[in-house]
Amino acid sequence: MSHTLVVGSVALDTIETPFGRVEEVPGGSAVHFSAAASVFGPVRVVGVVGPDYPDDALGFLRERDVDLEGLRQRDGRSFRWSGVYDYDLNARETLSTELGVFSDFRAEIPDSYRDSEWIFLGNIDPRLQLEVLEQIDDPRLVAADTMNYWIENEREALLRVVERVDLLTVNDAEVRELSGDHNLARAARWILDRGPEQVVVKKGEHGAILFGSESVFFAPGFPLEEVFDPTGAGDAFAGGLLGRLARGGEMDAGAFRRAVVHGCAMGSFACEEFGVDGLARVQWEDVARRVLDFQSMTSFDHEIQPPDETTDPLRSERGREAEASP
Amino acid sequence: MSHTLVVGSVALDTIETPFGRVEEVPGGSAVHFSAAASVFGPVRVVGVVGPDYPDDALGFLRERDVDLEGLRQRDGRSFRWSGVYDYDLNARETLSTELGVFSDFRAEIPDSYRDSEWIFLGNIDPRLQLEVLEQIDDPRLVAADTMNYWIENEREALLRVVERVDLLTVNDAEVRELSGDHNLARAARWILDRGPEQVVVKKGEHGAILFGSESVFFAPGFPLEEVFDPTGAGDAFAGGLLGRLARGGEMDAGAFRRAVVHGCAMGSFACEEFGVDGLARVQWEDVARRVLDFQSMTSFDHEIQPPDETTDPLRSERGREAEASP
Repeated sequence: MSHTLVVGSVALDTIETPFGRVEEVPGGSAVHFSAAASVFGPVRVVGVVGPDYPDDALGFLRERDVDLEGLRQRDGRSFRWSGVYDYDLNARETLSTELGVFSDFRAEIPDSYRDSEWIFLGNIDPRLQLEVLEQIDDPRLVAADTMNYWIENEREALLRVVERVDLLTVNDAEVRELSGDHNLARAARWILDRGPEQVVVKKGEHGAILFGSESVFFAPGFPLEEVFDPTGAGDAFAGGLLGRLARGGEMDAGAFRRAVVHGCAMGSFACEEFGVDGLARVQWEDVARRVLDFQSMTSFDHEIQPPDETTDPLRSERGREAEASP
Repeated sequence: MSHTLVVGSVALDTIETPFGRVEEVPGGSAVHFSAAASVFGPVRVVGVVGPDYPDDALGFLRERDVDLEGLRQRDGRSFRWSGVYDYDLNARETLSTELGVFSDFRAEIPDSYRDSEWIFLGNIDPRLQLEVLEQIDDPRLVAADTMNYWIENEREALLRVVERVDLLTVNDAEVRELSGDHNLARAARWILDRGPEQVVVKKGEHGAILFGSESVFFAPGFPLEEVFDPTGAGDAFAGGLLGRLARGGEMDAGAFRRAVVHGCAMGSFACEEFGVDGLARVQWEDVARRVLDFQSMTSFDHEIQPPDETTDPLRSERGREAEASP
């Protein structure tokens, strides 16, 4: 079984939404990613925490074949984030960010991780993302995420990352800011011209678009009736995407489409409960059911009649059936 | 051939976007709707203009079998609207609205229109929408649009309209305001509980969602690289939707899905040029091609393996093929 590797933050999140509040629950990009990817197969985590990080907080990951050897403990406080969402859950306000041990995080990849094949560079300093790539032997796929802070403050290093990855996962605001183009299709092409074979633009409740050099694939957001907490949905999306790719082992166009839908499914589970609770409870049967829901939500039949001498270029199926009978 | 009927505004629009400006071009819900629906079959228009409305402005509709008998001329100025879009083209500011003859518009349906089967009640006073329904003999499908002004000022009449139509087409902000629920899935259910069998929520560049009592269908926005002017895209959507339904003559779930995709296709053409120019030039071959693009943009294969005693519930297709061979 080929391994998925994530490098990213491991945090304690305090989250308030109109539906409730949780304090110091496990969070961060590496946690949300591995919670999602581990539904599909083994995951390796590289990150850092302080001695104050609760021992049992990541127990649910260990139970799922997530290797935490690369999660180092350093003296200092663990990374803490707190934020509040307003009623529409699309806009959030960060109340506090306490980097703690994460502020001088070095991405040290354990030797036992060097043969990892599916790499996710979570939203960290692009200079660290580049360091990770130096420490991996022969990855099959490298995907990276980023955020507005790095686009604005480490643009040059970020563009070097873009040149070296196979897949970039960014949200719509980020791809617009990075490319300087408001039009999503052109913005995605701007990225593709710089190296990656694929770009996934995450649009939250509106789904995700996979742009490749020759095709575009659109996966909708799942129309949840109850959204509790969107924290980590983007990382859960990436976890579903890479987890499914690793599980299937294929990298053709169809495999990427399937993987994006699995990403959307994992993103939707992430929103249904606070913190990682939604992902921690998900079984593969739930994923399979939701993917089938996605398929039934997006499929339609359309037979198109070629133009002919008669007057009716878009005849109904009924019309054609009648014609076909003797 | 069964007829589509639209009741709505016929206007002269002055539109400014970052990409240019046009003055007093044909616009209004009835014009955008019929420009789109007439690609599929005959359309009948009910509306009002003043003697100042240019004779040749609607010539492109007449050429396409659009019946303008119900477009009355009354003394006074034609309805004029002007607006400006900012760079992201999602937000627009109305600069002026001059109702003119539209301010005391009565929806008088000509006798020759009474047998129309596919009815679209454009965004007009819901009390007028109710009057239209009194004048139609036996429609197969009635669809209605509305806007925030009527939700806020004629809520009671609007709710009577909702009770009496088969399909409501509203945008995401409108369905939220009408239902008082921010969650789209619950907001749509709120509408369905009041009568309509289907609700289409239009989300602009993010596509459209068709909510029925038992299923949900999601059609993406077409990822255009050049968007010039989104004015009328919602009415073009409705025109494609009803035009395709009328053309096919069927009303099963599959027919509605196909129709929604045709609506999205027509909405995308509407955005590609100023005013109705995009729709005026569209041929059915263009529509067919774009619908195929929608299909390739949304389709994915996913075979799901039932759980078994072995360890690999989401095995790849490759794995299963190997297993199947002797």
